[in-house]
Amino acid sequence: MDQRVSLITLGVADVARSRRFYEALGWLVGLDIEETVFFQAGGSIVTLWGREALAADSGVEDAGGWGGITLAHNVRSPSEVDDVIELARAAGARVVRAPASTFYGGYAGVFLDPDGHAWEIAHNPGFPLADDGSIALPRD
Amino acid sequence: MDQRVSLITLGVADVARSRRFYEALGWLVGLDIEETVFFQAGGSIVTLWGREALAADSGVEDAGGWGGITLAHNVRSPSEVDDVIELARAAGARVVRAPASTFYGGYAGVFLDPDGHAWEIAHNPGFPLADDGSIALPRD
Repeated sequence: MDQRVSLITLGVADVARSRRFYEALGWLVGLDIEETVFFQAGGSIVTLWGREALAADSGVEDAGGWGGITLAHNVRSPSEVDDVIELARAAGARVVRAPASTFYGGYAGVFLDPDGHAWEIAHNPGFPLADDGSIALPRD
Repeated sequence: MDQRVSLITLGVADVARSRRFYEALGWLVGLDIEETVFFQAGGSIVTLWGREALAADSGVEDAGGWGGITLAHNVRSPSEVDDVIELARAAGARVVRAPASTFYGGYAGVFLDPDGHAWEIAHNPGFPLADDGSIALPRD
């Protein structure tokens, strides 16, 4: 099994509302078909799909709430963290951790999207971003 | 805000156990520091971290269970779907959807990792994989 994630599917209550939220962050829809919205995200795809359908498709019980996965979006500077957090707030996100210095020497904040999916927006000087936005672990 | 996910962090009950599980799938650890395990996954990073710490860091309440996010790992053939599902089963995963044809003309199955994180292993001829494993939405 290769080391990669192809799709990250976010189960949402209202696909149209979530689409508007991510569009308000500046994301462009790549495909919208059968009540499923796909965004190209680097070499992966972020998908919005009804949470009930996703739970059934994933063979899991859904009691609601957060499920132990947090996504991070890393940026190139602390001020860009502030900018994205404010953009998300303006788009209706709940900012649950205001941007601040982190224990690993970076600067980050966290917002929840309309369905409570957690996004950390982080500047981590130890994990450099390439020109294409991809991120690499430091090499030994 | 660019369209990309930098880190996908899976909150787990036992980081060492989860590390062994992903290593049994053939994944190589890129960094293991402060009870946090990082895997390079294409242009993103998959991270294992204690679920309690992740919930606190993410500013969310955690009632346990699945939280509306499913990850997909796409492969190049139906037989590779079978192979990865069997590999995961041998590593201790619970296979909650046996590999079968899908409504979108592909072939896929789903397993849950030791903490219940859902992974769909899919062959989707409509979403081609590049040589480097990255995936792209079809262009209009």
